[in-house]
Amino acid sequence: MNPTHLTGPVLVLGSGLLGASIGLGLRAHGIDVVVSDPSPSAQAVAVDIGAGRAFDDAESLDPELVVVAAPPDVTAAVVAGALQRYASAVVVDIASVKVAVATELKGLLGPDAHMLDRYVGTHPMAGREKSGPVAALGELFNSMPWVLCPSGVSSKHAVKVAHSLAIDLNAVVFRFTPDEHDAAVALVSHLPQVMSSLVASRLQETPAHALSLAGNGLRDVTRIAASDPALWVQILGANAPQLLGIMEGVRADLDRLINTLRAPTAPGARLDLAQLMAEGNAGHTRIPGKHGGPAQQYTWLTVLVDDKPGQIAKLLTEIGHIGVNVEDLRLDHSAGLQVGMVELSVLPARRAGLVEDLTERGWKVIL
Amino acid sequence: MNPTHLTGPVLVLGSGLLGASIGLGLRAHGIDVVVSDPSPSAQAVAVDIGAGRAFDDAESLDPELVVVAAPPDVTAAVVAGALQRYASAVVVDIASVKVAVATELKGLLGPDAHMLDRYVGTHPMAGREKSGPVAALGELFNSMPWVLCPSGVSSKHAVKVAHSLAIDLNAVVFRFTPDEHDAAVALVSHLPQVMSSLVASRLQETPAHALSLAGNGLRDVTRIAASDPALWVQILGANAPQLLGIMEGVRADLDRLINTLRAPTAPGARLDLAQLMAEGNAGHTRIPGKHGGPAQQYTWLTVLVDDKPGQIAKLLTEIGHIGVNVEDLRLDHSAGLQVGMVELSVLPARRAGLVEDLTERGWKVIL
Repeated sequence: MNPTHLTGPVLVLGSGLLGASIGLGLRAHGIDVVVSDPSPSAQAVAVDIGAGRAFDDAESLDPELVVVAAPPDVTAAVVAGALQRYASAVVVDIASVKVAVATELKGLLGPDAHMLDRYVGTHPMAGREKSGPVAALGELFNSMPWVLCPSGVSSKHAVKVAHSLAIDLNAVVFRFTPDEHDAAVALVSHLPQVMSSLVASRLQETPAHALSLAGNGLRDVTRIAASDPALWVQILGANAPQLLGIMEGVRADLDRLINTLRAPTAPGARLDLAQLMAEGNAGHTRIPGKHGGPAQQYTWLTVLVDDKPGQIAKLLTEIGHIGVNVEDLRLDHSAGLQVGMVELSVLPARRAGLVEDLTERGWKVIL
Repeated sequence: MNPTHLTGPVLVLGSGLLGASIGLGLRAHGIDVVVSDPSPSAQAVAVDIGAGRAFDDAESLDPELVVVAAPPDVTAAVVAGALQRYASAVVVDIASVKVAVATELKGLLGPDAHMLDRYVGTHPMAGREKSGPVAALGELFNSMPWVLCPSGVSSKHAVKVAHSLAIDLNAVVFRFTPDEHDAAVALVSHLPQVMSSLVASRLQETPAHALSLAGNGLRDVTRIAASDPALWVQILGANAPQLLGIMEGVRADLDRLINTLRAPTAPGARLDLAQLMAEGNAGHTRIPGKHGGPAQQYTWLTVLVDDKPGQIAKLLTEIGHIGVNVEDLRLDHSAGLQVGMVELSVLPARRAGLVEDLTERGWKVIL
């Protein structure tokens, strides 16, 4: 079935970052959006920034779609209430774990379980390390994955409306079963979060001078360790069964490593360490490139620049003139002041020409 | 003591990426550099790119300094040979683990252990995910940390010459004892490497469609999992005692997490998860900012740009005109094609003004 644009009205329950961003994005299409939040101030901010009009309990509302953008641990209850109150509405939630919500929802609905034909679990993967309606932005979902997880009883109409929501917000739609979704996010999202927190946790008692040697490796691995504990407690708790299996695999590998480190000169120790590294190499190459393209679609090159305003702009302007699109970019200037390294990823086919052109223009390119 | 410039000649034993880069950097100061490598072709490439002149066994060489840039597992033997052959030379090595080299060296020298007054262990932290003399660059050490680890018997002269080497290559000099150094790199370098490899290893058997949901969190955490196994086997093996203690701490945390995930609704489970996250937060804030400044010296803002050539250059050019220096920069456009998010880190004091100026110029800034 082809998704069409939503016609509205759309009721958004919960006006945090994601709920308010959904409201803003739909309002940009002229769709009638009604915003409701248990926090009057959060609701008022969402209305003020143009995410929709305020919910009025006295109004007889017949929404085409209810979007439940509540915290994960109350999502099922809010979905159940919406299905019961709005008899013809499609209801979607956007919680980042899907099986637990579906299970709890079934229990809550009891004899009303037939209403589940109007429900589709979804997960827009556009979370940020910021929260609240003030940070909301209609473009937040642009080009980001939005996973639809219809159950066996979701009606074609409900799936179509959920699909339309994602398309209206310019997201890239994926279709997973709830089980597949939870297994996938346990691996690509919850596992790296936990491991990043475990690494950062080790830094708590370290002498500061040791940390002065920190480079980009440590910074990369611990970047998401700054994430919000309150939200992650709910996510990790809700997806515990999927995450547990993965973490037990990690522990088996870690046990093997610890045994090897205890006797690093024993026969086979080097092979064990080589295997750990090689398995990491093998897993790493399976991560798709940006834009969901095949893995390793891009290659990197490094350019030295003076570490002062305007230098990176100058470099990128010249790359623009050369006509090459920079797919990703990183700065690396960990401990000093005079020079920075700019790492650029470009299509392999454009790399050699770019290196030549940049070198001709006087840039120092590291191959 | 104040380091002065080296006067040479400098003998560089090993002409891989680091050895050849050291030669190139010193040649730029007009210093006489002699390059030697067991591989004739590696030595020839280093000479061809200007890293120094070829070693001639018949020449009677009296070097001011011998730099041992051999692989970690032969470093001690090469240092011992250099101390014995060049009776007045200072000898430094650049291996990334220091205690194991010092211990092995003492054993190798035996009755010649008095020669250790001319030896200083060092560690330039400028390794890259590239190898060989072709990738060498005289500026490789610019603004990067270079750790000096003199032992109790290193002479003042030897330390001064080692210091001069780092200064001549524009590195930022740190002084650690060998024990302090190995403890520090176990934490800031070897721990993140191992954890990154453990995460990436889990991706080996995953259905590809699960990996299509990969975002920047997974990419950041697994970036260094692409590192060279051969080199890392030597590093992890040589620093096993230091790394072991850290990994046992990780395993204790991991065991607690696994127990919590087994009974995620048990009393205290939420608190356990919150503690894991909070400890990660606490450790993360201790990582110094770029340039070795205090932690969290910079704040981030995000700007939406069209994902086509020239847009990021335009943004950075305008930021240059506004007069704000961008400390770090990342692109985020994981799964789509039309729009990218540019994350910029700037000094907190410049942030509000920059947001205002960019918004006035029509950029979409996410707060």
